[in-house]
Amino acid sequence: MSVHEHKKLLEELGVDVERHAKMMEMGYEGYKNQFMSQTNRPKAMEYFDWFMSEVQGQRIAEINELRKNKKPAIGAFCIFVPEEIIVGAGGACFGLCGGSPATIADAETELPRNICPLIKSAYGFKLQKTCAYTQSADFIYGETTCEAKKKTWELLNKHHPVKVMNIPHMKREKDLKMWKEELSEFKEHMEEITKKPLTFEEMKNGVKIVNEKRFALQRLDRLRSMNGSDVIPISAKDALFITQISFLDDPIRFTQKLNDLCDELEQRVKENNSVYKKETPRLMVLGTPFALPNWKLHTAVETSGGAIVNEESCIGHRYYKDNVDIDEIKDEDSLMEKLLQKYSSVDCACFTPNTPRIDKILQMYKDRKLDGVIYYSLSFCHTYNVEAKLVTDALEKEGIPALVIESDYSPEDAGQIKTRVEAFLESINFKKMKKN
Amino acid sequence: MSVHEHKKLLEELGVDVERHAKMMEMGYEGYKNQFMSQTNRPKAMEYFDWFMSEVQGQRIAEINELRKNKKPAIGAFCIFVPEEIIVGAGGACFGLCGGSPATIADAETELPRNICPLIKSAYGFKLQKTCAYTQSADFIYGETTCEAKKKTWELLNKHHPVKVMNIPHMKREKDLKMWKEELSEFKEHMEEITKKPLTFEEMKNGVKIVNEKRFALQRLDRLRSMNGSDVIPISAKDALFITQISFLDDPIRFTQKLNDLCDELEQRVKENNSVYKKETPRLMVLGTPFALPNWKLHTAVETSGGAIVNEESCIGHRYYKDNVDIDEIKDEDSLMEKLLQKYSSVDCACFTPNTPRIDKILQMYKDRKLDGVIYYSLSFCHTYNVEAKLVTDALEKEGIPALVIESDYSPEDAGQIKTRVEAFLESINFKKMKKN
Repeated sequence: MSVHEHKKLLEELGVDVERHAKMMEMGYEGYKNQFMSQTNRPKAMEYFDWFMSEVQGQRIAEINELRKNKKPAIGAFCIFVPEEIIVGAGGACFGLCGGSPATIADAETELPRNICPLIKSAYGFKLQKTCAYTQSADFIYGETTCEAKKKTWELLNKHHPVKVMNIPHMKREKDLKMWKEELSEFKEHMEEITKKPLTFEEMKNGVKIVNEKRFALQRLDRLRSMNGSDVIPISAKDALFITQISFLDDPIRFTQKLNDLCDELEQRVKENNSVYKKETPRLMVLGTPFALPNWKLHTAVETSGGAIVNEESCIGHRYYKDNVDIDEIKDEDSLMEKLLQKYSSVDCACFTPNTPRIDKILQMYKDRKLDGVIYYSLSFCHTYNVEAKLVTDALEKEGIPALVIESDYSPEDAGQIKTRVEAFLESINFKKMKKN
Repeated sequence: MSVHEHKKLLEELGVDVERHAKMMEMGYEGYKNQFMSQTNRPKAMEYFDWFMSEVQGQRIAEINELRKNKKPAIGAFCIFVPEEIIVGAGGACFGLCGGSPATIADAETELPRNICPLIKSAYGFKLQKTCAYTQSADFIYGETTCEAKKKTWELLNKHHPVKVMNIPHMKREKDLKMWKEELSEFKEHMEEITKKPLTFEEMKNGVKIVNEKRFALQRLDRLRSMNGSDVIPISAKDALFITQISFLDDPIRFTQKLNDLCDELEQRVKENNSVYKKETPRLMVLGTPFALPNWKLHTAVETSGGAIVNEESCIGHRYYKDNVDIDEIKDEDSLMEKLLQKYSSVDCACFTPNTPRIDKILQMYKDRKLDGVIYYSLSFCHTYNVEAKLVTDALEKEGIPALVIESDYSPEDAGQIKTRVEAFLESINFKKMKKN
């Protein structure tokens, strides 16, 4: 698609083209500075670098090509939206822009200041019309995992078509039964777009495609820190960026490119080629998601001599840890049942109780031979913030070093975060030294 | 009960007696200063003054007398807890202490700072053991109306027995069906305490008693501002205090005393005896509850020349606006159905959508011949905070003056609130002047 044609498409989508162009340019500059300046990067990152250069270019054109053919284009904020069904319908499921401070002042003209920056940022992108993903969404598919989002849908619906999936906050049998009904309703909403019934075979194909994507992400996770050596073959920022892109890219192409990268990472492990110095403290980040381009914490850790080898976040391990048991799928009902099983395994802090999350975290810590964890919460995220106490109590009991950070998207606290991370890494290094 | 005996009871309840005594003394001093200094008060306020002097004295003794006889004593935070069932079982349902800044620093050792002060205050009372109500509760009965509470129950449960009622956030048929099951489960939890089945007749009697209480509160509401004249026969602070006490007192005695007061207020209306000067701007407060002793906003309005004639809050109109349709109750199932009908009429901002609230507010405004409204939100209350935009948009469309205030329990913003209230009242007076 020519530059001229693309501009025309953006205009048709109602994008504020001029402002959008400026934001894209700034975003790409930021990426080049923070990512492409890294040394010893895997060669296969080239694809992801290219994707960033076309993040609202070719990908937006592809999504709108699908829309022309009555395929659904669904924008989401949450990993509970069953992308298998969208992909099965031949459509695209994508994460809405929501990681930038540049739209927050606009959002605050309609939303309270003291809610999570992810919601405000995304809402601001809609008001500004500076996200081509948001503008391309047939529906923004909301859910009820947090009350700030739940109530924001009522406002956002005045600016864009919104549907809401009611996610229960307990996992009793009756809650799961209702959840399954939500999955069926979700399917019906896709059929409103495609104007034809979505077949069992199509949905099963969607499950297959998304399973493959999750397998590739699991493979990346293992290669980062469970590869049988101390080698960390990819930087934390690159690995995070790949996970961020998994919410935007075409899943088949993405899976192929990620597997290519993993092949290269395997080779690097064999060759003892680590992007970090020996003895670099290995950290895991727990908590809330890092939406593109929120790289603040990762930058702070990497510039302070630490390595992050896993994000236990929704843009991270929580997203890809479970697959849909495709072998047990015989018909539409069992497909919905297995989808439900996958989604209800998600250990979001919206659930009460949510104790399996704590057991999982302790296990992840052991499996990845970590030195410490950072509990990261977006500001004003009540669920993850309150749950932090239960998690850090459990970590303390096991003698696991933990740092709790609450932050938003403003660059103002970057220095303070770096100082805290440095002190945390120092205490870890001191502990390691004493041990040896 | 002698002072000595009462001290013994408090000790048995695990109350930090010394600290408790100091807090009670301070609280009563505050009441005397702010309430008993008012002029032209109804004589029947004497009872409520007495109640305040015994708020954690005689009433605590009464509750523990019930407990001795295996009657349930249930502490709650929310008007969704079906007190009819508790009262039917011969027990006491009471609001937990949660309106004081004095316990918040303690709570913040375990809870995030940026959640609602009501939750933090109540949690702090438990940690300090300075609330004899909390200490007297067989169960603290939580619910899932907001996520900060929902997650706090998991922590609070480590300090006190907690049960949780799952309130849905939509009102579709299937949500209501699940809600009804919660009501039945609630009943079973009461039977765990009484060790015997709760009969239909007992429960119906509970409905009758609580209905009578709500009738009396509705009567007070009408007398404040819908009495066919401009007379406001009771101060905003006194009326608020009575509503606060409705969550603590024995319901039969309370109803009797409130009806006595209403008789006197009726007489005052006839005698044209208003506690406010003629032309005092008539305001309604919308939003979140004022837990005892949170009188900050009411004090600010009354000392600035305004009158509040209704609180559209959970400690207010939202609590008593609907009664249970007792005439339609034939058996346990219809009783549960009618209870559900009453509780699902509550227009808490936890629901999505919650549009009936807006229609109600506009109607209340007309019925009460108001001059303006104050939308009051406790800090960090996402649901009421986000919904404020929808409400104020609707008010603006109708040309209704509105002031939005978000505040916590600290005395620090009292001056700032007063300044804003004064400016708001000035603009109302100016508007009224121009009209005449």
